[in-house]
Amino acid sequence: MELRPIAHIYTDFEEKFGIPRQSGRVQELTGRIVFTPGYRDPEALRGIAYFSHLWLIFDFTEAHRDTWSPTVRPPRLGGNRRVGVFASRSPFRPNPLGLSCVRLEQVCPAGKEGTVLLVSGVDILSGTPVYDIKPYIPYADSFPEAAGSYAQVWQDYRLTVEFPERWLSLLPAEKRSAAIACLAEDPRPSYQNDPERLYCMRFAGCDIRFTVRENVLTVQEVVREIDQNGEK
Amino acid sequence: MELRPIAHIYTDFEEKFGIPRQSGRVQELTGRIVFTPGYRDPEALRGIAYFSHLWLIFDFTEAHRDTWSPTVRPPRLGGNRRVGVFASRSPFRPNPLGLSCVRLEQVCPAGKEGTVLLVSGVDILSGTPVYDIKPYIPYADSFPEAAGSYAQVWQDYRLTVEFPERWLSLLPAEKRSAAIACLAEDPRPSYQNDPERLYCMRFAGCDIRFTVRENVLTVQEVVREIDQNGEK
Repeated sequence: MELRPIAHIYTDFEEKFGIPRQSGRVQELTGRIVFTPGYRDPEALRGIAYFSHLWLIFDFTEAHRDTWSPTVRPPRLGGNRRVGVFASRSPFRPNPLGLSCVRLEQVCPAGKEGTVLLVSGVDILSGTPVYDIKPYIPYADSFPEAAGSYAQVWQDYRLTVEFPERWLSLLPAEKRSAAIACLAEDPRPSYQNDPERLYCMRFAGCDIRFTVRENVLTVQEVVREIDQNGEK
Repeated sequence: MELRPIAHIYTDFEEKFGIPRQSGRVQELTGRIVFTPGYRDPEALRGIAYFSHLWLIFDFTEAHRDTWSPTVRPPRLGGNRRVGVFASRSPFRPNPLGLSCVRLEQVCPAGKEGTVLLVSGVDILSGTPVYDIKPYIPYADSFPEAAGSYAQVWQDYRLTVEFPERWLSLLPAEKRSAAIACLAEDPRPSYQNDPERLYCMRFAGCDIRFTVRENVLTVQEVVREIDQNGEK
């Protein structure tokens, strides 16, 4: 089957580093779903506002490979144990399709981009092609008692984040809590534990540089990219 | 993106008529997932048995079209009201991808078809290509309080099924409760209500013929296909 993008989603992540490892982990992370011109028909969205959650099937654009590996090393297992690719949500899979459940926040009336959907709880790279949008149907999709194996183990795992005010104030006000929540998710590759190492998460047009010592993440610097009118 | 089938699923439905309208509606319905030779590697399934539920992304093979319609008429709305295709789980969508959550019943050790997965709660045509299998992760996938709109309305809707013993006994014993449960789902197109009309659901190698008067479905006849040794 040949898939054609029906839409693209735009988020605060232009790079993979720091994207939460599942949808819904950071509810504050928002996305704008913009339909491609051939699918920009408001009729196709009739009734969608009555649903609170949507499934997105999307392209793991950075995981396209000519070959596939039968096993992967999930970050939730410390990055050093292998599980089967079909027992994981890794992007590196034979057909690199992503599946995320997002909350539908707003259906924006048709403007020059057509009707746009605002969603939250995203875990997707900005600019990602979306192949399908389906409503979430609780009786068919919700199994709170399902056994989630290793993927549940770190459900409540979070770092403490120290984000000095002088750096935090450089972020747009409405992006601050999302940034802190993403950092608390521990963006490091799981097998790394070097307290001297300086990491950089690119988020909402800023480079957020930080170190991690034990369970505390400390932001060392924030650099805003030069914006359109040439100011830092 | 070009998708390649990683597996095919074999179920008791060789025809679309009678397939439950969502996964999990009829838990007794089982399926066998057989991997295609290029993906028949038991390592790709390592750890999968620790999950109770799986997502299948599959091909709505009978819904391939050259064009797409922005609206569909869901059976749950009586078949006469239109909603947007992205506000429905209809198979007739720009990219005809299906998404179902099934229960993993058994991982069958490698035989001549390789490792086979037995699943239940299926709503899929036999022989359907499967493009991806992902583990169900409750914290990311389960939202019991999500608003399900019209799709929830008929959650508890079921017909009473009268299946005379003389006909029921023609079904393989292990298929009987699944057949009754599928009939209770009301396989008719929703806009039809003709008590004289004889419908036929083809299930597990049998033609099950029935009528529906008000909320009672009555099986009128069962015809088994001639099996391999020439007997009816």
